[in-house]
Amino acid sequence: MQNEVRTILQKLQNGECSIEEAERALKAAPFADLGFANVDLHRALRQGTAEVIYGAGKTAAQIVGILHAMTDAGQGRVIVTRLSPDKAAAIRETFSIDYDETAQFALLGGEAEPDGLGTILVVTGGTSDIPVAREALLTARALGNRTEAIFDVGVAGLHRLLSRLETIQQASVIVAVAGMEGALASVVGGLVDCPVIAVPTSVGYGASFGGVSALLSMLNSCASGVSVVNIDNGFGAGFLASRINHMEAKG
Amino acid sequence: MQNEVRTILQKLQNGECSIEEAERALKAAPFADLGFANVDLHRALRQGTAEVIYGAGKTAAQIVGILHAMTDAGQGRVIVTRLSPDKAAAIRETFSIDYDETAQFALLGGEAEPDGLGTILVVTGGTSDIPVAREALLTARALGNRTEAIFDVGVAGLHRLLSRLETIQQASVIVAVAGMEGALASVVGGLVDCPVIAVPTSVGYGASFGGVSALLSMLNSCASGVSVVNIDNGFGAGFLASRINHMEAKG
Amino acid sequence: MQNEVRTILQKLQNGECSIEEAERALKAAPFADLGFANVDLHRALRQGTAEVIYGAGKTAAQIVGILHAMTDAGQGRVIVTRLSPDKAAAIRETFSIDYDETAQFALLGGEAEPDGLGTILVVTGGTSDIPVAREALLTARALGNRTEAIFDVGVAGLHRLLSRLETIQQASVIVAVAGMEGALASVVGGLVDCPVIAVPTSVGYGASFGGVSALLSMLNSCASGVSVVNIDNGFGAGFLASRINHMEAKG
Amino acid sequence: MQNEVRTILQKLQNGECSIEEAERALKAAPFADLGFANVDLHRALRQGTAEVIYGAGKTAAQIVGILHAMTDAGQGRVIVTRLSPDKAAAIRETFSIDYDETAQFALLGGEAEPDGLGTILVVTGGTSDIPVAREALLTARALGNRTEAIFDVGVAGLHRLLSRLETIQQASVIVAVAGMEGALASVVGGLVDCPVIAVPTSVGYGASFGGVSALLSMLNSCASGVSVVNIDNGFGAGFLASRINHMEAKG
Amino acid sequence: MQNEVRTILQKLQNGECSIEEAERALKAAPFADLGFANVDLHRALRQGTAEVIYGAGKTAAQIVGILHAMTDAGQGRVIVTRLSPDKAAAIRETFSIDYDETAQFALLGGEAEPDGLGTILVVTGGTSDIPVAREALLTARALGNRTEAIFDVGVAGLHRLLSRLETIQQASVIVAVAGMEGALASVVGGLVDCPVIAVPTSVGYGASFGGVSALLSMLNSCASGVSVVNIDNGFGAGFLASRINHMEAKG
Amino acid sequence: MQNEVRTILQKLQNGECSIEEAERALKAAPFADLGFANVDLHRALRQGTAEVIYGAGKTAAQIVGILHAMTDAGQGRVIVTRLSPDKAAAIRETFSIDYDETAQFALLGGEAEPDGLGTILVVTGGTSDIPVAREALLTARALGNRTEAIFDVGVAGLHRLLSRLETIQQASVIVAVAGMEGALASVVGGLVDCPVIAVPTSVGYGASFGGVSALLSMLNSCASGVSVVNIDNGFGAGFLASRINHMEAKG
Amino acid sequence: MQNEVRTILQKLQNGECSIEEAERALKAAPFADLGFANVDLHRALRQGTAEVIYGAGKTAAQIVGILHAMTDAGQGRVIVTRLSPDKAAAIRETFSIDYDETAQFALLGGEAEPDGLGTILVVTGGTSDIPVAREALLTARALGNRTEAIFDVGVAGLHRLLSRLETIQQASVIVAVAGMEGALASVVGGLVDCPVIAVPTSVGYGASFGGVSALLSMLNSCASGVSVVNIDNGFGAGFLASRINHMEAKG
Amino acid sequence: MQNEVRTILQKLQNGECSIEEAERALKAAPFADLGFANVDLHRALRQGTAEVIYGAGKTAAQIVGILHAMTDAGQGRVIVTRLSPDKAAAIRETFSIDYDETAQFALLGGEAEPDGLGTILVVTGGTSDIPVAREALLTARALGNRTEAIFDVGVAGLHRLLSRLETIQQASVIVAVAGMEGALASVVGGLVDCPVIAVPTSVGYGASFGGVSALLSMLNSCASGVSVVNIDNGFGAGFLASRINHMEAKG
Repeated sequence: MQNEVRTILQKLQNGECSIEEAERALKAAPFADLGFANVDLHRALRQGTAEVIYGAGKTAAQIVGILHAMTDAGQGRVIVTRLSPDKAAAIRETFSIDYDETAQFALLGGEAEPDGLGTILVVTGGTSDIPVAREALLTARALGNRTEAIFDVGVAGLHRLLSRLETIQQASVIVAVAGMEGALASVVGGLVDCPVIAVPTSVGYGASFGGVSALLSMLNSCASGVSVVNIDNGFGAGFLASRINHMEAKG
Repeated sequence: MQNEVRTILQKLQNGECSIEEAERALKAAPFADLGFANVDLHRALRQGTAEVIYGAGKTAAQIVGILHAMTDAGQGRVIVTRLSPDKAAAIRETFSIDYDETAQFALLGGEAEPDGLGTILVVTGGTSDIPVAREALLTARALGNRTEAIFDVGVAGLHRLLSRLETIQQASVIVAVAGMEGALASVVGGLVDCPVIAVPTSVGYGASFGGVSALLSMLNSCASGVSVVNIDNGFGAGFLASRINHMEAKG
Repeated sequence: MQNEVRTILQKLQNGECSIEEAERALKAAPFADLGFANVDLHRALRQGTAEVIYGAGKTAAQIVGILHAMTDAGQGRVIVTRLSPDKAAAIRETFSIDYDETAQFALLGGEAEPDGLGTILVVTGGTSDIPVAREALLTARALGNRTEAIFDVGVAGLHRLLSRLETIQQASVIVAVAGMEGALASVVGGLVDCPVIAVPTSVGYGASFGGVSALLSMLNSCASGVSVVNIDNGFGAGFLASRINHMEAKG
Repeated sequence: MQNEVRTILQKLQNGECSIEEAERALKAAPFADLGFANVDLHRALRQGTAEVIYGAGKTAAQIVGILHAMTDAGQGRVIVTRLSPDKAAAIRETFSIDYDETAQFALLGGEAEPDGLGTILVVTGGTSDIPVAREALLTARALGNRTEAIFDVGVAGLHRLLSRLETIQQASVIVAVAGMEGALASVVGGLVDCPVIAVPTSVGYGASFGGVSALLSMLNSCASGVSVVNIDNGFGAGFLASRINHMEAKG
Repeated sequence: MQNEVRTILQKLQNGECSIEEAERALKAAPFADLGFANVDLHRALRQGTAEVIYGAGKTAAQIVGILHAMTDAGQGRVIVTRLSPDKAAAIRETFSIDYDETAQFALLGGEAEPDGLGTILVVTGGTSDIPVAREALLTARALGNRTEAIFDVGVAGLHRLLSRLETIQQASVIVAVAGMEGALASVVGGLVDCPVIAVPTSVGYGASFGGVSALLSMLNSCASGVSVVNIDNGFGAGFLASRINHMEAKG
Repeated sequence: MQNEVRTILQKLQNGECSIEEAERALKAAPFADLGFANVDLHRALRQGTAEVIYGAGKTAAQIVGILHAMTDAGQGRVIVTRLSPDKAAAIRETFSIDYDETAQFALLGGEAEPDGLGTILVVTGGTSDIPVAREALLTARALGNRTEAIFDVGVAGLHRLLSRLETIQQASVIVAVAGMEGALASVVGGLVDCPVIAVPTSVGYGASFGGVSALLSMLNSCASGVSVVNIDNGFGAGFLASRINHMEAKG
Repeated sequence: MQNEVRTILQKLQNGECSIEEAERALKAAPFADLGFANVDLHRALRQGTAEVIYGAGKTAAQIVGILHAMTDAGQGRVIVTRLSPDKAAAIRETFSIDYDETAQFALLGGEAEPDGLGTILVVTGGTSDIPVAREALLTARALGNRTEAIFDVGVAGLHRLLSRLETIQQASVIVAVAGMEGALASVVGGLVDCPVIAVPTSVGYGASFGGVSALLSMLNSCASGVSVVNIDNGFGAGFLASRINHMEAKG
Repeated sequence: MQNEVRTILQKLQNGECSIEEAERALKAAPFADLGFANVDLHRALRQGTAEVIYGAGKTAAQIVGILHAMTDAGQGRVIVTRLSPDKAAAIRETFSIDYDETAQFALLGGEAEPDGLGTILVVTGGTSDIPVAREALLTARALGNRTEAIFDVGVAGLHRLLSRLETIQQASVIVAVAGMEGALASVVGGLVDCPVIAVPTSVGYGASFGGVSALLSMLNSCASGVSVVNIDNGFGAGFLASRINHMEAKG
């Protein structure tokens, strides 16, 4: 953003543009205004990855429109989350996407070559947590990460978890996905020295209150090095895991 | 209760009492009405243990009054919970009680001889959970149980817990006391084949919401064989543990 | 678990295995990894009963897969809870299960011979609580317990409850199932000297908040000897009742 | 109010007042504006009892001011609720009030002669509920009712309650005061054919959430004929009980 | 209940029955045990009205069974609430009921002759509150009360309410039904000298939280003489209103 | 209202009406009582705009009835909110309405000529907030306001918002519509010197709790000049914005 | 902000500054960085009023530091809210402020001349709401508004409110302050055609939950033209009222 | 942990220890059992940093005991959080600690040399958030990180934040600390390409509910790359930031 400003100012000083032009340029939207959406086309520059489309509240036509705007702007890889199978089918008539029905996840442009610091490991407490876990896995893979997964190793059978200790302790970043009492995040957090991203899920019934029980559990984790994303937010966990897995010396 | 009815009815049939007397007797209160309290004097008969005095909402004078009523009725062992040190001091002027300040717990009449099936084990997640744990321990001991305690073995350092596995697996009943994310109950529950009574504590801050986080965690435990009592209710857990530890063939 | 370790160590000392083999054996998973599930095959050893399959978040195919893994490992009796009729029908094509539609409960291998200390009694406040109550009953019976049931004896008609006092007072363990204000647990708890497991149900409307009212009521029970499981968790109550009903001298 | 309007209109028609005077009179405030308070002086006419002063948010000086306004307007009997002892002492320098420290309740003008249909009975679950119960009792007595009280008959010792069945069934209106699980209201409600006013109290700890548990319990009562007032609102219950106890044929 | 006891005791004294018979009689259930339900057949004696059937959690067949038990026991008038049209149709094949689809309310045996102290008035804040209001009206009418109704007079158009002041002030008991902010109860409560029963409804959206907003509003009413029943509980309000409207001198 | 009173009083003084007539007139309902609804016909006089029909809880027939009453009373412009397409179709058989399906909004009588102080700007955080935003826009237009809209400028891409700074800073009133974390209201509020009306939406999942997250965020806005309406209440925001946009010197 | 940018650009084009200077100027902080605070010195330009100091979380020394920064920058009028008496005394040693202890409100520089469109009226439900109401009043007066106040006119005595109808209907903006059930906002909202800003207060007990009851009530107001600020936020209401009262033609 | 096992097994194979010794060694607690605490002495090995002492629930004597155990075990650097000044003073009699009163933070052994990938930046919304921010800063510094801080740049004055854009965009990890509406995390999250750890604080009043508003806001952030820790948990954020700042290629 700073560089853009500097470029415009240089043009102005060199008489290559008028004040009005400079002023307009400074405000020139680095996004496409589609009426129903303002597609952020500079996000890749600003944040290292293109805008991600949250499919839940949009029609297939709107999503197609946004995809056009993004590909027109040269963005080759786009993620669409929370995409129902029927919308995915409708989009496929225009774009060639990879679609995972379990995770309700679509990818345009294929997965990036893995180039992170290590492996992102996704573990779940139960079988029912798999859709959320897959959203995290696919997001991480789309963004260029090696991934590994261990499903259904909840704390009620601790040996299942402990038997995978080596894999767990070699991960670069861990995404811990669990519903019900969400104890998995604390137990994993106590075993490793890498960042742990906890994802509470809405799996459970009664006093699980749609994921609140797991959420509170994870926020109150007595293990250090654990942070939390929204209930069922596999994408957010995968995205953050990728960022951490791509850390490099800075400043 | 049935036997009492039967006795009265027999007297009536035998002409040993009038209808009015029988009717009155059937209603005769097996409790002492002190005005501010109706002391249940049959609870020991009905439930195997005398009424327990909840000290928090009562004055020292009221508690002394209740103790008089109970000892007058021949009840030799009485527990007072949530008793502040100043009230304990006031009561001591009249009654010779054992008082534990950490647990805010007083006992009149001394601990019963341990005679249960096995040992009641109380484990805590942290050091701050000890007051609640001691309330459970002292209750269990008062009611005639061998007890053992392991403090500060929260799941963030799993090896501390696992190193005590033998003790844990030999317990007859386990009381798991934890605040924050309350994961201890699930982890312990997954390791043993005895009943586990989970006690959430109000230890924590922020989103622990005074024990709600631990409470929900424990209610949603994915381990079987775990049940839950109220937040900070060490007494309730110790009492129930004692009942379970005194199970015998019936019917 | 300790014994397994000891056996492996003895083999190592005796030169019957290499360090690598021992190390691998110590980590050798006593569970079957099906990809989508890690079936705990040692739970029966560790906890006295086989793993129970929570049917709600799994496909019929997944459940069949888990059943194969368990029966292959020699586990003759398996419970499946929260199983919808259509999944039950699909499973029946492969396994011969007993299925109860009211309780959404399936049992493979038939009920165990009753051998507990006494009778487990399940009482409900109303007719609508019966599905949860049946889940508790069927669980207890599968695990080898004599059971008895009294339905629809809520506290608004206390004489209905009191007329069954003899049955109530002769029970070994009581499971009290109620929605709405959940007062049944307290009233029953005050009448008996056996452990009471309270199950709040989501029966009710308005300020019952899907079972929260009954849950809070039961957690705050002024009767001693009452503990609580999750809303609608009939299985958990039946399982714990069975454990308590099988208590024996230990240590 | 209708009659006042009619009187003013008649004066206008008879030329006994001008339009401006009538208009002013129609708006003339039947209350005293003290700046910090608008004392409702017609409430006795409109509702049968004078305005009640809620002492909690007011200074002693403000309360004295309001009392002056009310006595100046000829209101002989005034209740002040939630009045701390120090404020009561300050008010006593000016007014001769009866003050009950337990209930934090003051009465100016003495109790009215009891003239209701029957007796208002106040029952409590425990000893700690007595302050709220006394507020209800004193309110009912101030407003001209015979009252009776039974304290500490919570459902954990049902026989205490049942032994007083005759008194309970002879009451005209019952105020049931309880904290913790609040089951008293349902049990009492199931035994009688008179209106029951349930008052949840903030007595309890942990998951009683300052009275929420008892409040929800009472709102979900499976007994008919039970309604609920705010947590700790003894005054409201006593006031409504008095109204019901003074019902008479109408219209 | 007392009289029943006395009768049995007299028979015993007179040698008209054995101890065993008396004991059995004292416990003899004044209810019909249908397995799935324990129909309270003494409720009319004990509480002045027959048991009411809550239709929501029962099958049509179960309801028919209960109706048979009740009519067999001589109870001529039975209310069924929350009865869906299809269940009503099924019941009609056996019993001749009056059914109101708006209120989901059925009555067997016809409305009683009105004989209360005055008129029960039901007012609503809006049009959407009418189903709940009708449940209250039909309940009150079934139990022998004159009723009147004023719908859609919410406080946003105060003159609509004030224009009906005469009707409002002449009522014997008022049932105030409102969703959203539930202010109606307070405003009505401030205008009258009769008991007001407030019924919060689940009408509204967003922060009305299914009736919680109205419920809290009504519990915190600054008007005296107002009590509250559960969200959408028109039956409870109508039942209690009838009780109050039938008050008579007692004791 | 005052003027109406004055007119009636003048007639009475002049002998143009009797006391009875005056009294009746003073109470004469400025609304149409349709049984199921009391249509407020004076609201336009009292509040400057006709009553608005909340379509969600009413049948098409009821809405038609209300529209007849309003048009009969000479009200030319009527808004119906939360109107489903099928009800809209049914109403169209009788009335010629403009209907917007996205906003579920109908208008009878066409939009008023814009005559406010300036432009009402509606901004949204995302595409999914558009239905609520449109309800606000259509309401404002119906009531005579120029409007402008900027959609999908949430704070995650701040430059999208800042690029429209000029439009934002020239608005007369701003309606900020956002779900999820609702930060838009604070950011916009910090940039402008006009009133900002924040509308939380139920857009989001997990811990957004149906709009609660955005609601709390907006209530706690650290920017001054921001107030909040109910979740998803686009109509309320548009209505209030119109009022503010029509402010004029008074008193 | 736009003008500042333009000025800087013009200087650059005219060669009056270098690119580096322009870039720095564009970023030059229009605020004073005190380390513990970044005092916004352009807020008056951007929003029409100077930054307001929230006193609750700051030491007297910090507040004095901020006041110095603001007066140094030429801001003559500064508001400090939530200022305790002792901090006020400490500040007075340096600055000459007007301080209102009831409202915990300080003003430096004196009230502005009233120049708004009309009068801002602040009404309260009770006497206990006065501190919040005074904060609103003093804020409005500081910002140049005529104000009027009516205290203690809650809806339980509607005539108190109606008697002031003329004042209420002549107001330009109304701030309605109420705790408990918060019905005042709806009732006032239904009577007027000006914007109503509702301020819920934490006045009340039990189920008022520290202002939540009033907050929900106000958010669900069935009256149009009402918006809500945070609980006890008198300042926010007074500030917004002032903005609305200073509306003028724009664009 | 694996290596320890391997070492022990090798000794056993080599006959350097008996089975019993090996078994004991495998269980030998890598922690010090002080009775009231089980100090985890292997945490540094397992997780890269020593156990941290949560000072809130412990006495000064307990903390001194734990410090002794840790220093005895050779741990040179120990953090104590939530340490009150008086406890800090008591500890200083034995240990030489650095203590920061604002953050209630003590460090034994001095800060480590900064050696991370870049700079950890801590930003706050307001001045009142500084104590939590300092806890994060001091934790990060203790663990060997360069840090920078920007305080009081809440979104109500966006230019304060934007003026520091360069610093913000050059950070390696950002800790965003904010109370009230917590919008800071989303706004910062949208501007950067590094991980953002959001810390909600309990700063605010009314509907901020002790930090819940900020917590929900941050969990629902529409910006990617943001995760959340518990309310007021500055330590947790600083710890995790350090972990991320020390990422290196693995596996």
